[in-house]
Amino acid sequence: MDNKIKNTIDILSQLDSYEALFYHQNTEIALPSIDELREIVALTRKILFPGYFENLTIHSESVRYYIGVQIEKLKSSLTKQIYAGLCFSENYDDKLKYQDLAKQIALQFIEKLPTLREVLSTDIEAAYNGDPAANSKSEVILCYPAIRAISNYRIAHELLLLNVPIIPRIITEMAHSETGIDIHPGAKIGRYFTIDHGTGVVIGETSIIGDNVKLYQGVTLGAKSFPLDAEGNPIKGILRHPIIEDNVIVYSNSTILGRITIGKNSIIGGNIWVDKDIPAGTKLIQKK
Amino acid sequence: MDNKIKNTIDILSQLDSYEALFYHQNTEIALPSIDELREIVALTRKILFPGYFENLTIHSESVRYYIGVQIEKLKSSLTKQIYAGLCFSENYDDKLKYQDLAKQIALQFIEKLPTLREVLSTDIEAAYNGDPAANSKSEVILCYPAIRAISNYRIAHELLLLNVPIIPRIITEMAHSETGIDIHPGAKIGRYFTIDHGTGVVIGETSIIGDNVKLYQGVTLGAKSFPLDAEGNPIKGILRHPIIEDNVIVYSNSTILGRITIGKNSIIGGNIWVDKDIPAGTKLIQKK
Amino acid sequence: MDNKIKNTIDILSQLDSYEALFYHQNTEIALPSIDELREIVALTRKILFPGYFENLTIHSESVRYYIGVQIEKLKSSLTKQIYAGLCFSENYDDKLKYQDLAKQIALQFIEKLPTLREVLSTDIEAAYNGDPAANSKSEVILCYPAIRAISNYRIAHELLLLNVPIIPRIITEMAHSETGIDIHPGAKIGRYFTIDHGTGVVIGETSIIGDNVKLYQGVTLGAKSFPLDAEGNPIKGILRHPIIEDNVIVYSNSTILGRITIGKNSIIGGNIWVDKDIPAGTKLIQKK
Amino acid sequence: MDNKIKNTIDILSQLDSYEALFYHQNTEIALPSIDELREIVALTRKILFPGYFENLTIHSESVRYYIGVQIEKLKSSLTKQIYAGLCFSENYDDKLKYQDLAKQIALQFIEKLPTLREVLSTDIEAAYNGDPAANSKSEVILCYPAIRAISNYRIAHELLLLNVPIIPRIITEMAHSETGIDIHPGAKIGRYFTIDHGTGVVIGETSIIGDNVKLYQGVTLGAKSFPLDAEGNPIKGILRHPIIEDNVIVYSNSTILGRITIGKNSIIGGNIWVDKDIPAGTKLIQKK
Amino acid sequence: MDNKIKNTIDILSQLDSYEALFYHQNTEIALPSIDELREIVALTRKILFPGYFENLTIHSESVRYYIGVQIEKLKSSLTKQIYAGLCFSENYDDKLKYQDLAKQIALQFIEKLPTLREVLSTDIEAAYNGDPAANSKSEVILCYPAIRAISNYRIAHELLLLNVPIIPRIITEMAHSETGIDIHPGAKIGRYFTIDHGTGVVIGETSIIGDNVKLYQGVTLGAKSFPLDAEGNPIKGILRHPIIEDNVIVYSNSTILGRITIGKNSIIGGNIWVDKDIPAGTKLIQKK
Amino acid sequence: MDNKIKNTIDILSQLDSYEALFYHQNTEIALPSIDELREIVALTRKILFPGYFENLTIHSESVRYYIGVQIEKLKSSLTKQIYAGLCFSENYDDKLKYQDLAKQIALQFIEKLPTLREVLSTDIEAAYNGDPAANSKSEVILCYPAIRAISNYRIAHELLLLNVPIIPRIITEMAHSETGIDIHPGAKIGRYFTIDHGTGVVIGETSIIGDNVKLYQGVTLGAKSFPLDAEGNPIKGILRHPIIEDNVIVYSNSTILGRITIGKNSIIGGNIWVDKDIPAGTKLIQKK
Repeated sequence: MDNKIKNTIDILSQLDSYEALFYHQNTEIALPSIDELREIVALTRKILFPGYFENLTIHSESVRYYIGVQIEKLKSSLTKQIYAGLCFSENYDDKLKYQDLAKQIALQFIEKLPTLREVLSTDIEAAYNGDPAANSKSEVILCYPAIRAISNYRIAHELLLLNVPIIPRIITEMAHSETGIDIHPGAKIGRYFTIDHGTGVVIGETSIIGDNVKLYQGVTLGAKSFPLDAEGNPIKGILRHPIIEDNVIVYSNSTILGRITIGKNSIIGGNIWVDKDIPAGTKLIQKK
Repeated sequence: MDNKIKNTIDILSQLDSYEALFYHQNTEIALPSIDELREIVALTRKILFPGYFENLTIHSESVRYYIGVQIEKLKSSLTKQIYAGLCFSENYDDKLKYQDLAKQIALQFIEKLPTLREVLSTDIEAAYNGDPAANSKSEVILCYPAIRAISNYRIAHELLLLNVPIIPRIITEMAHSETGIDIHPGAKIGRYFTIDHGTGVVIGETSIIGDNVKLYQGVTLGAKSFPLDAEGNPIKGILRHPIIEDNVIVYSNSTILGRITIGKNSIIGGNIWVDKDIPAGTKLIQKK
Repeated sequence: MDNKIKNTIDILSQLDSYEALFYHQNTEIALPSIDELREIVALTRKILFPGYFENLTIHSESVRYYIGVQIEKLKSSLTKQIYAGLCFSENYDDKLKYQDLAKQIALQFIEKLPTLREVLSTDIEAAYNGDPAANSKSEVILCYPAIRAISNYRIAHELLLLNVPIIPRIITEMAHSETGIDIHPGAKIGRYFTIDHGTGVVIGETSIIGDNVKLYQGVTLGAKSFPLDAEGNPIKGILRHPIIEDNVIVYSNSTILGRITIGKNSIIGGNIWVDKDIPAGTKLIQKK
Repeated sequence: MDNKIKNTIDILSQLDSYEALFYHQNTEIALPSIDELREIVALTRKILFPGYFENLTIHSESVRYYIGVQIEKLKSSLTKQIYAGLCFSENYDDKLKYQDLAKQIALQFIEKLPTLREVLSTDIEAAYNGDPAANSKSEVILCYPAIRAISNYRIAHELLLLNVPIIPRIITEMAHSETGIDIHPGAKIGRYFTIDHGTGVVIGETSIIGDNVKLYQGVTLGAKSFPLDAEGNPIKGILRHPIIEDNVIVYSNSTILGRITIGKNSIIGGNIWVDKDIPAGTKLIQKK
Repeated sequence: MDNKIKNTIDILSQLDSYEALFYHQNTEIALPSIDELREIVALTRKILFPGYFENLTIHSESVRYYIGVQIEKLKSSLTKQIYAGLCFSENYDDKLKYQDLAKQIALQFIEKLPTLREVLSTDIEAAYNGDPAANSKSEVILCYPAIRAISNYRIAHELLLLNVPIIPRIITEMAHSETGIDIHPGAKIGRYFTIDHGTGVVIGETSIIGDNVKLYQGVTLGAKSFPLDAEGNPIKGILRHPIIEDNVIVYSNSTILGRITIGKNSIIGGNIWVDKDIPAGTKLIQKK
Repeated sequence: MDNKIKNTIDILSQLDSYEALFYHQNTEIALPSIDELREIVALTRKILFPGYFENLTIHSESVRYYIGVQIEKLKSSLTKQIYAGLCFSENYDDKLKYQDLAKQIALQFIEKLPTLREVLSTDIEAAYNGDPAANSKSEVILCYPAIRAISNYRIAHELLLLNVPIIPRIITEMAHSETGIDIHPGAKIGRYFTIDHGTGVVIGETSIIGDNVKLYQGVTLGAKSFPLDAEGNPIKGILRHPIIEDNVIVYSNSTILGRITIGKNSIIGGNIWVDKDIPAGTKLIQKK
């Protein structure tokens, strides 16, 4: 065996070399699984949009069978992943307690599905109505990256409200990777929300978005600066992202920064940098 | 069984809850398959660039065997997916008619392959010549996301011209997800086209791009506003995206909006918002 | 057999039709494999961050076993891929020579792993400290696309320094596709480097970045214009990208072009186009 | 290209070289798929034995959902495979006619499922009661190769009765390969049938087996000799295998040949060759 | 929806139709997984025969790393499957108790590995020495079905001694399906055991086999008749299979039945039926 | 870490514990791969029986393309596996020499394909003519385990004649596992060979079988006893299996042992033990 390799293994195995980058697993508890979370999102999509994502005839008489089975599967997978998330993020102490908690949260999430479906149907309508290139709602449901990103966000947001750690962020990062749209699960977003094209959109953790808002590609709803704590690090959790009121449109590549408010019915043109409140009904265009 | 789950299944199974989000499949007709479409794009790439995407020795005497087999495979898969697309998008009435139509279209697409190859070779040349970081054309063919995105677009565009529904959009969205480059299959794009880096590029449905055009990352060729119909919805299919004439370069993150014309040989600097015609030979830079 | 298909096969099989797009493989030498390179990156990540990316209990007594096995696997896979890269890119002449060279380079890369781990730990610290939305370093390691992109870059950069062709670019393009962050493996980047959100970031081949630099989504470190050679093509390898000194922050969607220097401790606001040197300590904001 | 290889391709491509071994597929019709047939058998098993072959909680309130969905899936897959079988085996003439026929047959098969389940439950009881090594019926259902072979046979036999070509044979050959038990789908087998160990058992096409029969490993129910037709070939379909009446046991490696009858309640010892009728109640042992 | 299908679903969902064939899973407990058990057998094989079953260089200095990691993996997978087996077979009452028990048993099994390796090395020697067609021990380890079947048996037997339910039987049935050799995990088998060809061999639950025994294909060590209990069913667990003493050879297709003893150094010819004690040193041949 | 586990790892890592069961791989040389060999057999089957084993339309004009590509693939895979086999079995000394040798052997094998196809077509005819249950030659090619076993044997036999080590045995063991038919690659077998049902058939290394021979399930062509060398081990490679002349039928479960000759046109009944020469034209039946 090569001496340099041996030496490298030695260095890499010294505690001080890896301890900051080390996760001490417990044998009996699996890590959160990105593959299973992908499956959970796919299952949820199958329940919410029956008939679109699986080769299976469903009709009004069999839809109940179909949804019944998918919900049983969802309950089982989601319980496992929530449990994995709890154990990953918290100081592990009581296995049974977390198993019960995970089960309870999974049930609470399932109860939210009818509402999720209802809200997503408004997003689909907004995407279809707002895009002259859209030929049908079917095309929107099947192909539009915005619908994929918004679905993941709405699922993740519900899990975050139920205090599930880590899992919501993994779910929105999946959509981020697939679509280039980065919505933090903590953001609050109203009905009839749509994003056109989408690559580069960023919606920060404490953003609040009203109903009927449309964003174009490259739009950032970000934080301007962070108050630092005594040690010079940003204070976690501070309200630092914009409030976008109802019926606002923000065109491509504009950047809206800080806990400011963009008033109702405003239009923000493309490639603009906004860090002050904008009164309702304003039409803001880049100067030349 | 938990009562709340039962209740949730009940709600999710009520017709008015799902009918707007429901696709009523016909048992005998498969949905368009994203996996098979990915395979179709891979097959086409293998035919157009022999030797790059499969571990198999091909030489001048065996290239005919290789292409012969790949074209038979392409014909068969493409026929199936075009048929799936037709049935998904149209009011299904006559199975045999669509099967024949799908076969015919697949053959017509195959006849376009020599032209496709010829045009793509100009794109590769443009990418190689235009990028000081490119070490060889091989590197461009194998690694450059722009070549991947432009290949998918050129395949999708031919299918759109042959009136194939939904499939072209799925093919360009695949490339969008992989590369962050969003080219609508309806756009018309000339020879020697290249995109550098590419993430965030958007090229709208009715855009027209001449020969020898280069775009940088984050460039939008978008629509400014949409004329609304009587019910306040955008009128579908209106000409609303820019015309970019030959030899134009658009630097990163610029936004060109509306049915305007950027004249030949112009250079548009980065981070600019353009919504008026630009005469040929103009050099436009962001003011400071 | 359809005559048109026969005809198409004929055209596609003519040497002048495919020769510019043809790679003449040698039977006994595999092409670089994207799947194996993905595996190599995953292996490296498992070695650097033990316990995060596999369901396996590792503790201080078994970490050496774990790292020992993973390094043997890495050595074997990496040797194969480096060999594939050498054969793909160079005029193939002496199989044994390249096999030996590949093995040597793989060993040299492995010796760099302790340094790689140490530098990546500074990046993780920077990401955690700089993001109020980050709940823990675990979350940063597991979910943050910036960490994924920077890891791939740092691996690819080491391979580039060891003169491995094509492979480094494939590795950074993988991260580009997953995260929308495009870092050329040739760039030089200091410690405590972080990128927030990241989609659309471009860091060009000859960029130099100091310690403790933070970039936001959509930032370009690009080239302004390329000196052309006698035939009108860009001269390869010229120094053409910016130098970003220590402690600089660049906000979203700004574009910094050319071999200019952004001095220490400067802050560049969002949506700005910069093509001149900026003195240390400057705060540059978009005018309105 | 090596001349010998070229030459070999030439020879292998001459019509008279391959025509006896050639299947001229029709592009639009898939071959019967062994993988899908495996899936169909697995689906049937899930319907017949709920809860044993999938990680999913099923209880009395959800069993209907579960079975409803599995039957929809079975209908769809089975229709496709029956259609493939019809087209493979018959002179293809009318695509639509075969599609309708396949659908009808699939429905008729599904109606047989309750009877299939009832009969299989008697086989399981027989296996459990007859084997002192069996710890529970669960173990029998989950592990016993005889149950696997008999299930495949009973499924295949129903399909054969519905005049499905080729598919039944593929299904019994699957079980033959997994278990070493070769039951021709044409055999007629009563209730409470069991096979112990099973490797090497052969049950010929025209065998008739009563209720409550038990066979041990290596038992053959075969044909003695075949009447030849004018050209010296065996006449197809002649009754040539034994009739085994109720309550018979045949011990290991015995061979029973020809259209003879083994009378009720008989016991045939191991390693015996029987080619004459055996009266009811006989106990036949190998002489020494 | 077809009325007959609805009707079939109704019948199949009635409790009395499925209750004898139903396994009522507990959501949180997975069924024993045949795929994971296959993986466990493969892992064990990798530990026992280092270097044969994985593309990885192992040498005297790295063998410890390799075995260390494989044993950690084995511990984790085996614990899960033993737990699944316990829950499947026993009246489930205390989840934590079974989890602890499973972990303990897995550890006890791991402690048996050195002995397992030592005994298997005698089997390999016997196979190599006894077969003139064997070219090397490597060939025996890599290709011989007998080694595969005996390995699975020896693993399963250890688990049975540790009172693991169901799992041992699944492991020997895997080998039965792959090799046609059916060894019950309850049998007791000495050192230097070998089976030639093997298809059709059956070794019953209470068989005892000495050292240095060789069986040929088709040999049965079976039970002659079972004492019945009051209800006419076989009494479980009775000693009913043969004792084969040291240095015995049994040629192909012979059947040895009942709790009889075949004395040391005997040779049993092929196609023989034996149901009486055979004194040591006997040579028994089929009469003609 | 548990002390007992540590201790077990220690024992298992001591050289004398594993050295007899250890294969010292060379990093750069892969082990023979069962998956790739399975693929090689499948490829060969696709070449020999065009149209049966892949969903692809082939007609007289495209068959040449199809066979051309499959032969290139076969050449490449087979070269790799032959090389792996040579390195596994021989004292490795000169990598380049073995690479060349492997390539040459692969080419020689490919030249045998037309003969292989011709002989296999006689086997198929024999199977079809000899089985009253066979509905068509298509069914025989697609479903009959005998054809699968004989194909693997004939492929393996050619490789053995070309002095390829280990690989031929792996290929016949694959068929053994799938069909229960164990034909040693060293046996010599004439044309029009068929096996009915087949489970349990064993054909030893030095067997010679004439034309037009038919075997039933469970037939053994074995060795009676082996001359031992000075150390008491069987002498390798001695002629010890039967010669079966033309037109012989052997019924189920009979055992023919030793270098004896079964004369032309003989019929051997079932369950018989034969260890003496049988004159031509004999009809041998079990006595009762």
